[in-house]
Amino acid sequence: MRNICMTVSYDGTAYNGFQIQPKGRTIQGEIEKVLLILTGETIKIHGSGRTDAGVHARSQVFHFHTESQIPVERWAIALNSRLPDDIVILSAEEKHLDFHSRRSAKRKTYRYSIRTGKYPNVFTRHFEFHHYSPLNTEAMRSALSHVIGEHDFTTFTSIHSTKQSHVRTIYEAKLVVEDDVIHTYFTGNGFLYNMVRIIMGTLMKIGEGKIKADDMPSILAACDRSKAGPKAMAHGLTLWSVEYEFTDIPVTLAEQARG
Amino acid sequence: MRNICMTVSYDGTAYNGFQIQPKGRTIQGEIEKVLLILTGETIKIHGSGRTDAGVHARSQVFHFHTESQIPVERWAIALNSRLPDDIVILSAEEKHLDFHSRRSAKRKTYRYSIRTGKYPNVFTRHFEFHHYSPLNTEAMRSALSHVIGEHDFTTFTSIHSTKQSHVRTIYEAKLVVEDDVIHTYFTGNGFLYNMVRIIMGTLMKIGEGKIKADDMPSILAACDRSKAGPKAMAHGLTLWSVEYEFTDIPVTLAEQARG
Repeated sequence: MRNICMTVSYDGTAYNGFQIQPKGRTIQGEIEKVLLILTGETIKIHGSGRTDAGVHARSQVFHFHTESQIPVERWAIALNSRLPDDIVILSAEEKHLDFHSRRSAKRKTYRYSIRTGKYPNVFTRHFEFHHYSPLNTEAMRSALSHVIGEHDFTTFTSIHSTKQSHVRTIYEAKLVVEDDVIHTYFTGNGFLYNMVRIIMGTLMKIGEGKIKADDMPSILAACDRSKAGPKAMAHGLTLWSVEYEFTDIPVTLAEQARG
Repeated sequence: MRNICMTVSYDGTAYNGFQIQPKGRTIQGEIEKVLLILTGETIKIHGSGRTDAGVHARSQVFHFHTESQIPVERWAIALNSRLPDDIVILSAEEKHLDFHSRRSAKRKTYRYSIRTGKYPNVFTRHFEFHHYSPLNTEAMRSALSHVIGEHDFTTFTSIHSTKQSHVRTIYEAKLVVEDDVIHTYFTGNGFLYNMVRIIMGTLMKIGEGKIKADDMPSILAACDRSKAGPKAMAHGLTLWSVEYEFTDIPVTLAEQARG
């Protein structure tokens, strides 16, 4: 039995999320369909986490067990030639059997992108939320700083969350402005259901001046979803990277991250 | 009678080109459909030029005549709210009746983008041609320099061209490398049918080492389509800008061009 680990990037626009659902096409469904063709085995892949319908991944990680003897350097090419063009396998490697894409993950980074200005950009419209009016990015940055650290993030998760603990640690949160686009990056040890999108919906209310940046600590401390802003639209969100050990990051991704 | 001039950006992926065709959706067709709804008039728009099926525009220009009294600052919003999201009107202004988007144009710029590397980028896959193997960009740049100036571009146009003269002037041609992407910009007083795509197909052969950069002058001088490389794929091509008088460039576009 082999344990194969892959990184995959996808444009989530056309999908009902990563995880197989009763209805609609999913990233997992497309990949498992191709794995069946390649190996003849009914393979179940395990992602580092789900992404919602319309959410993208620059570098999602998944693993699966197989008896197939396909050489590791052939997997990515073999899958990509059969996958739709909005899913691209970036790398494949063989791991110890105890490696688990979700349980072994140390840190994850998400990016949420907002374009301000009169009109969306046609070339990036599926990857940026378009916000017509200007946003006060200094207020947003100030509020954002309060999510760094270990907190109970109940305020910023869906009331449908089934997790026992809502305590997570955000190691880094930064807001980068590039022309008319505001990119917000979150790196943490785990993220609750809808957590980034609800934080971003709240930050946008702060950027609009409808919530004060100084209220962020009490909103977070309230552990009450009703104190937060609305959930931001899915299409602005991208799973940016999943980190295991530093030596595990493929060189090309490390270079992209530095670039 | 008013003469309204607009700039429009579009993702050409889903369209059979700018100009109305017997079959398939076109940019012109979509815009004229919305203009009929807005004005009640059967309006024919005139583009600065056609773009082929699958070719994009960052900033295409068109004009049309209308009796409508819609204030000039309302046109873009009114159209955008009814157009599909892969077509975005960027600006509208009223011009003298003798302004003509094609005849009054002084310079046009096209960009052709090539991504090299093992895999395409899912987020830009519709806007970059993916070339698996590395390309010798120094050889391509050297060959590219020979197209600058006034030349008969018969070698680099479709044999189906119906133009009387194939003499055009390229003011500027530059190749810019950004990580794994090669962007080639052409600015000229006009472009023949398929001209940029055939030059790019030839440059790729040069980048692959299959044609020598030093052969570019004789290939151009031959005035023979069979001496050039193949026509590059449409989706790497973007109409970047159309210039009239410098004072005519909307401020926002001038800023983007500087950025």
